[in-house]
Amino acid sequence: MKCTVCREPALIDLRRHNSNFCSDHFLKFCRDQVTRAIADYEMIQPDDKVLVAVSGGKDSLAIWDILNALGYEAHGLYVGLGIGDYSDTSGTYVKKFVEARGLHLVEVDLQDTYGFDIPTGARAAKRAPCSACGLTKRHVFDGAAVDGGYDVLVTGHNLDDEAAVLFGNTIKWQTEYLARQAPVLPARNGFPRKVKPLVRLSEREMAAYCVLAGIDYIVDECPMAAGNRHLGHKAILNQMEAQSPGAKADFYFNFLRSGAEHFRAEDHDDGSIGTCERCGAPASGEVCAFCRLLERAGGTLPEPQPVELTARRELPRELQRETP
Amino acid sequence: MKCTVCREPALIDLRRHNSNFCSDHFLKFCRDQVTRAIADYEMIQPDDKVLVAVSGGKDSLAIWDILNALGYEAHGLYVGLGIGDYSDTSGTYVKKFVEARGLHLVEVDLQDTYGFDIPTGARAAKRAPCSACGLTKRHVFDGAAVDGGYDVLVTGHNLDDEAAVLFGNTIKWQTEYLARQAPVLPARNGFPRKVKPLVRLSEREMAAYCVLAGIDYIVDECPMAAGNRHLGHKAILNQMEAQSPGAKADFYFNFLRSGAEHFRAEDHDDGSIGTCERCGAPASGEVCAFCRLLERAGGTLPEPQPVELTARRELPRELQRETP
Repeated sequence: MKCTVCREPALIDLRRHNSNFCSDHFLKFCRDQVTRAIADYEMIQPDDKVLVAVSGGKDSLAIWDILNALGYEAHGLYVGLGIGDYSDTSGTYVKKFVEARGLHLVEVDLQDTYGFDIPTGARAAKRAPCSACGLTKRHVFDGAAVDGGYDVLVTGHNLDDEAAVLFGNTIKWQTEYLARQAPVLPARNGFPRKVKPLVRLSEREMAAYCVLAGIDYIVDECPMAAGNRHLGHKAILNQMEAQSPGAKADFYFNFLRSGAEHFRAEDHDDGSIGTCERCGAPASGEVCAFCRLLERAGGTLPEPQPVELTARRELPRELQRETP
Repeated sequence: MKCTVCREPALIDLRRHNSNFCSDHFLKFCRDQVTRAIADYEMIQPDDKVLVAVSGGKDSLAIWDILNALGYEAHGLYVGLGIGDYSDTSGTYVKKFVEARGLHLVEVDLQDTYGFDIPTGARAAKRAPCSACGLTKRHVFDGAAVDGGYDVLVTGHNLDDEAAVLFGNTIKWQTEYLARQAPVLPARNGFPRKVKPLVRLSEREMAAYCVLAGIDYIVDECPMAAGNRHLGHKAILNQMEAQSPGAKADFYFNFLRSGAEHFRAEDHDDGSIGTCERCGAPASGEVCAFCRLLERAGGTLPEPQPVELTARRELPRELQRETP
């Protein structure tokens, strides 16, 4: 097996690209795929201040590494979820990565900041752990990005993640979710711009990237996610991919090209969202979903920090422009 | 295991319905499901003259049997495809079924009528056998229904068939096909009304129906279809169904309920279709796809039969109504 680019011995084959790569050309391939995703979907501008949500897993550490290599100013954001040993270990990987590279990391520990962790919070609120965790992370990510004055929030969702979520929404024809599935969510209603620059790269490719780039990461799946439906959908897509290389990417990118436009009218967000009366985050009701979770989980909001609140608040629409 | 209805010993369990049935109540269940599909999608009116396309397989013989049991006037249509022993055997099952019940069967033998069969025709025309066969059957079915003055053409597509086709079109986001996938295709442009009354019943249920109703059918799959993608999609859906009973029906019926409407604009048929200059069938070009296949396969059209041509011809639109 020879590298498709330089004919030196190859370390990895990529069937859907009909290519093999040596270490150097594989790392270049991954960076090129990120460059292309960023360009195709106009994800990040060269001078943007970028915040990367990192978990200690392969995807988020890899995209942080790649964005640095591509010359972006990218800070990391780590949220301590309190999922026992799993969270302790994942935090250690993040800190090792940060120290070795001299990067800037924003840290939010759920227990320290809000007085709850995911396992006890999910139990108390009678929510599935993945649901409570997703809600919490979205809230903390959004707040950190807006409060910190970042232009864009990057997450490490890869092709397998996005295709599996799309598959789940499609198989149930959840048209409102289909209306919102995109590699870029523009900033609106006080939410930050969110982008997924790894959509052109698979789970296996990200694991290989980390091994070859010398990035240590937590290999275990989250113990609370074991057996969830999302993983079942990944298994089905992997089976289709094995039978027909490229099937997974075709499914996802054909959706973006041909399917997505048919569901746009289902995106009922008319921009008239309000503000949570407790935490000030954007919310469709009086109290945002995170503050409702927090209440049931027995946690509390941190003391308001004036600087953060100023950064977060938005002027009402009628004050934003000088009336003609 | 007891029958959910009468508590007598049950012969079959239906996980997605959380039910078990004895023989009598299972047969009734199947007929009820057909009644419901016919009502839900307004498939057939009580006095309609019905033509059922029968292959000798379980689905088409079962739906013919059920329509008779429900009191419809239903004739059968059997097309001899010339696929070696498979066609000979399937024809035998159809004739046994017809003779035992004293039913009316319309027969069209491809070789006798058009001078070609599917294996040689597909080879000569360099088409995949399933593609040549589908095209040919559609042409012969449509012609027989229109020429015979039938109100509706029934095919034996079951839930597994429809879900697998939907899955294939969805996974590729073939939005034009998604726009046309429905359990009822209304009559238009010289095509007959086509309906699929088995959409609420699975492959396994139809096999059980035949066994319990004493219908002998050809069990083998068509030898030319072995390994086609359609069967792969069925396997994936079966896997999902095993993990989560009802997943297959949810996928299909949620599409009809919530997904389908989003693709309607992709149905580009504006009703301005013309007529094949060779055979008189509806066609978008000068010569219909079947006549092009026929030419490449070295076959010929049968001598025109005046009665049939009269039945088939339609008045041009401007002559259909008296100008005010």
